Amino acid sequence: MRGNTFGKLFSITSFGESHGKAMGVVIDGMPSNIEIDESELHRFMLRRAPGQTKGTTNRVESDRPQVLSGLFEGKTLGSPIAVMIENTNQKSSDYDKLKKEYRAGHADETTMMKYGIRDHRGGGRASGRETVARVVGGFFASQIIPDVSIKTELEKVGDLLSPSEDEAIEYLEKLKADGESCGGVCVIRIQQPPRGLGEPCFDKLKADLAKAMMSIGGVVAFEYGLGKEFADKKGSMISSDENAFGGIEGGISNGKEIVLKVTFKPTSTVGDKAKSGRHDPCIMMRARVVLESMAWMTLADHFLRQRAYEGR
Amino acid sequence: MRGNTFGKLFSITSFGESHGKAMGVVIDGMPSNIEIDESELHRFMLRRAPGQTKGTTNRVESDRPQVLSGLFEGKTLGSPIAVMIENTNQKSSDYDKLKKEYRAGHADETTMMKYGIRDHRGGGRASGRETVARVVGGFFASQIIPDVSIKTELEKVGDLLSPSEDEAIEYLEKLKADGESCGGVCVIRIQQPPRGLGEPCFDKLKADLAKAMMSIGGVVAFEYGLGKEFADKKGSMISSDENAFGGIEGGISNGKEIVLKVTFKPTSTVGDKAKSGRHDPCIMMRARVVLESMAWMTLADHFLRQRAYEGR
Amino acid sequence: MRGNTFGKLFSITSFGESHGKAMGVVIDGMPSNIEIDESELHRFMLRRAPGQTKGTTNRVESDRPQVLSGLFEGKTLGSPIAVMIENTNQKSSDYDKLKKEYRAGHADETTMMKYGIRDHRGGGRASGRETVARVVGGFFASQIIPDVSIKTELEKVGDLLSPSEDEAIEYLEKLKADGESCGGVCVIRIQQPPRGLGEPCFDKLKADLAKAMMSIGGVVAFEYGLGKEFADKKGSMISSDENAFGGIEGGISNGKEIVLKVTFKPTSTVGDKAKSGRHDPCIMMRARVVLESMAWMTLADHFLRQRAYEGR
Amino acid sequence: MRGNTFGKLFSITSFGESHGKAMGVVIDGMPSNIEIDESELHRFMLRRAPGQTKGTTNRVESDRPQVLSGLFEGKTLGSPIAVMIENTNQKSSDYDKLKKEYRAGHADETTMMKYGIRDHRGGGRASGRETVARVVGGFFASQIIPDVSIKTELEKVGDLLSPSEDEAIEYLEKLKADGESCGGVCVIRIQQPPRGLGEPCFDKLKADLAKAMMSIGGVVAFEYGLGKEFADKKGSMISSDENAFGGIEGGISNGKEIVLKVTFKPTSTVGDKAKSGRHDPCIMMRARVVLESMAWMTLADHFLRQRAYEGR
Repeated sequence: MRGNTFGKLFSITSFGESHGKAMGVVIDGMPSNIEIDESELHRFMLRRAPGQTKGTTNRVESDRPQVLSGLFEGKTLGSPIAVMIENTNQKSSDYDKLKKEYRAGHADETTMMKYGIRDHRGGGRASGRETVARVVGGFFASQIIPDVSIKTELEKVGDLLSPSEDEAIEYLEKLKADGESCGGVCVIRIQQPPRGLGEPCFDKLKADLAKAMMSIGGVVAFEYGLGKEFADKKGSMISSDENAFGGIEGGISNGKEIVLKVTFKPTSTVGDKAKSGRHDPCIMMRARVVLESMAWMTLADHFLRQRAYEGR
Repeated sequence: MRGNTFGKLFSITSFGESHGKAMGVVIDGMPSNIEIDESELHRFMLRRAPGQTKGTTNRVESDRPQVLSGLFEGKTLGSPIAVMIENTNQKSSDYDKLKKEYRAGHADETTMMKYGIRDHRGGGRASGRETVARVVGGFFASQIIPDVSIKTELEKVGDLLSPSEDEAIEYLEKLKADGESCGGVCVIRIQQPPRGLGEPCFDKLKADLAKAMMSIGGVVAFEYGLGKEFADKKGSMISSDENAFGGIEGGISNGKEIVLKVTFKPTSTVGDKAKSGRHDPCIMMRARVVLESMAWMTLADHFLRQRAYEGR
Repeated sequence: MRGNTFGKLFSITSFGESHGKAMGVVIDGMPSNIEIDESELHRFMLRRAPGQTKGTTNRVESDRPQVLSGLFEGKTLGSPIAVMIENTNQKSSDYDKLKKEYRAGHADETTMMKYGIRDHRGGGRASGRETVARVVGGFFASQIIPDVSIKTELEKVGDLLSPSEDEAIEYLEKLKADGESCGGVCVIRIQQPPRGLGEPCFDKLKADLAKAMMSIGGVVAFEYGLGKEFADKKGSMISSDENAFGGIEGGISNGKEIVLKVTFKPTSTVGDKAKSGRHDPCIMMRARVVLESMAWMTLADHFLRQRAYEGR
Repeated sequence: MRGNTFGKLFSITSFGESHGKAMGVVIDGMPSNIEIDESELHRFMLRRAPGQTKGTTNRVESDRPQVLSGLFEGKTLGSPIAVMIENTNQKSSDYDKLKKEYRAGHADETTMMKYGIRDHRGGGRASGRETVARVVGGFFASQIIPDVSIKTELEKVGDLLSPSEDEAIEYLEKLKADGESCGGVCVIRIQQPPRGLGEPCFDKLKADLAKAMMSIGGVVAFEYGLGKEFADKKGSMISSDENAFGGIEGGISNGKEIVLKVTFKPTSTVGDKAKSGRHDPCIMMRARVVLESMAWMTLADHFLRQRAYEGR
């Protein structure tokens, strides 16, 4: 009830503060007898790690996942899969000055309002570091549904429209050198999704995907299909062949590509602080695998839900 | 698990097909000993009813709520509150031709994909009529949190920016006469919200509000604070005094006004069919009280959640 | 969270006070396309109704179920099934003297402790009348799992061991005439259950069945297999051919008959009051269909849960 | 949904196979700002450890808990508390012969029925070793509710009635030397519980306590108050001053001592195997702290639930 669990039939429970001993996740609801390649898991997680592109932070994070339970001889047992990632770079000396510094757009002040206590050494639970749990969950979720693929595209990075990865990185490096940050927009494409996922009332597929995406720090807007463009359309202008509804009708997937769009706000840290190695000028670059992971988990959950009712 | 329940500590379970015997809702988690004025409930529900403004459908719906349980001598008992609204205007003769007609942007076809059966006489569970359950829930939720107020503003109705109610209605009447429909944008303002609501991880207040709004049929985009405008901003351009984060930092309310924005798609029905009395050219007008109701319920749920942990 | 919902994939939400307008239930998670014979539902419910056997109360309750939603042309739609049963015999004049009377072993006093308010005209939510919702749920649950049958046997009624129905009724009539009440023990047999139901940790089948049975008013003990007799056994005395473990090993069904045992306490009302028509000397007689219904729902829930993970 | 989570507002998610890398637990819903003494936690856990009394297994288990998250400078943060206990004594060489050996009364065979795969080196999730997670959860739960105390008493150990601890140990040592095992009965007393805990319908306090206790391996019967003795009573024989209802009326605590009784079956292993060091002749001795832990968690959960609705 404190909101550290996501999903119903496929669920993850996330734990760990950014500057505590370890981050981790317990996955409950993984079907049994599925082969898991732990090196693939690690590769998937590396997409999130900073240092991968020069545009993002240079901090080296090992992020080596330790699987504590749920696998036996390379296969899932059907029991909870616990994965721990130790936090290695705790330099507590740096942190005393952060004790009473509340950063705008962060959880620092609201955490004190809510709990009356916080680990001032970092973002705690609201830290981007928490997303490592989601990526582990996303990897396992991706092993459940056959034939689906999920990918993300950069629609906008600061002033650039639909840049290539290289263009985006070059742009962000310049931005960083200036102590500046920027927002951006990402498109998530879920290709060949199963039909019939999502429920007609509160658990519409679009609603659960919205929650999934909006639960990521820094995401400030969610759209599907034509999204905000719909506000400029008349009914007669919408032709069904353009997949205007983004693969979801009446809250339920229709088998067409599911198209989602999320907007990120600029990182709050600007000025001299932003020039140092520890800060991303736009977290969207690293967050793409988190977006995909949240999409995988939402889909896997609804896939299992639907299977329960359909019969064999 | 079929997604007809919304909320955890304050929850509603919704039932009813648009052309079945009755719609209804069971509210579980209403605190006891709260005075309820049933005539106020009815007034609140009338804001949703069509026929209220000329721009919306002229169909007369009685929508008189019958409270079946949970109230005693004008006060809540703490037990589930069941409210039923009978469906009065079932004209089954009209519906035979709808049997195999799947309307684009509706749940008709996806319902068949999912269930292998549907009540072809209407939208079933995905019908706008289902929202009556949400409005009942919203009314009760609004009785729980002191001092908060929630209101909606029209930001865009088709071609009009920030129209008055009268301007919007006149515009929509013209649109309807032409057999046309349009989309729109609504701003929801939650004033004087409690601080500390929302959880730092998956159940961020922005995430649960996103799910709440995106669970409404016709809603295609959700934003909070500056929303999509953030994509055009540099970090240095964001000043904290403009409430850029819309009252939510790190997923937790900070006590400032919570500002949300939702976009509606145009109604799918256009052409001659759209000219008749039964269709809204823009459902946003009627949906405003549904938006507010979903906001009330999300807030009440998080209010009770927070109270559980805070102690007395 | 106020505990009026039972089950996860097959769930019921119960509502209604014993002396309010109506009792009712919303079933969520019924698979679609299942044929339902409403007259069978009514017959199933009649097994609970008093007046059926002379040993139980003579009050006439119509208990005619009105299906408000979820069925279309005799089949389930997959949407929530709401069923309402109106309360017809509210004679409010009788009830003033009950305002401050707290009956031992009832919820009267604890309800005031908990809510600070109660409907003094009857047992409210803790009334036996609430079980009508469970019986409706049980009937629908029984339509989901093929080949299973569930029945109950009287092991003990007051001083009688394994009486026939007629012997029990005669005994109870005599007891009632004396203003006395008695306890009893019932055995529930679930025959030909599916294998593999139940989870190895908290949601062991025996644990969920225990919760199901102990949630019924008047039930004071739950056993499975040899139950309390195990306390008198040595390990070497247990032979596997006697089904000592009652069809459940390690919390999971093994395909053998599941054998449960529940004990009822005597009705609290004794003396002159107990002689009148409104009181059962032993509620176990009427409660048998409630026991079976709780078993059906628990089984259906676990059946759907298992199907979600097994694949097709 | 695979049943590895227990509780709603105070919840634990348990993970780990008995012969995997580690056992562990994630506690979600611990209030913030509560002082925690980790050495007290360890002491509490030692009550479960074998080797403590000679009557139980001699296997040395270190069971040193590593707190991975949720504590900061000796206080709870309000974020999830993850605790890991490494499994140290995995001797994989012993286990090949267990591959196809299905022990009666264990989960060995039903696990294969359910998952089609199992870790044959031990009981997996159904192992008694899993209860370490529950004891950690129980310790934290016990820090939430002021003034309550919970204790267990031996009512029956094999042939002994109400033995002292020493008498029981001596008896069990003899039994073990004979390769025999026995069942037993334990009484759990919850003293000075808060009033008003438990819900009147499905989540009656007796029902949730029953589920809690019956979710422990080896527990075969649950009673409260007079329990099975009620079957031999007439209504007129029940006097309220003896606390016949065990502190619970209408499913809700009345403030009196809550009295529960659980029965354990004899350990299945008998004969020569039972004489070796690894087997308990009666797991009830070690399980007492598990019983108490389940009681603590059930109480803490209902305490927080009630606080949510009561207001400040």
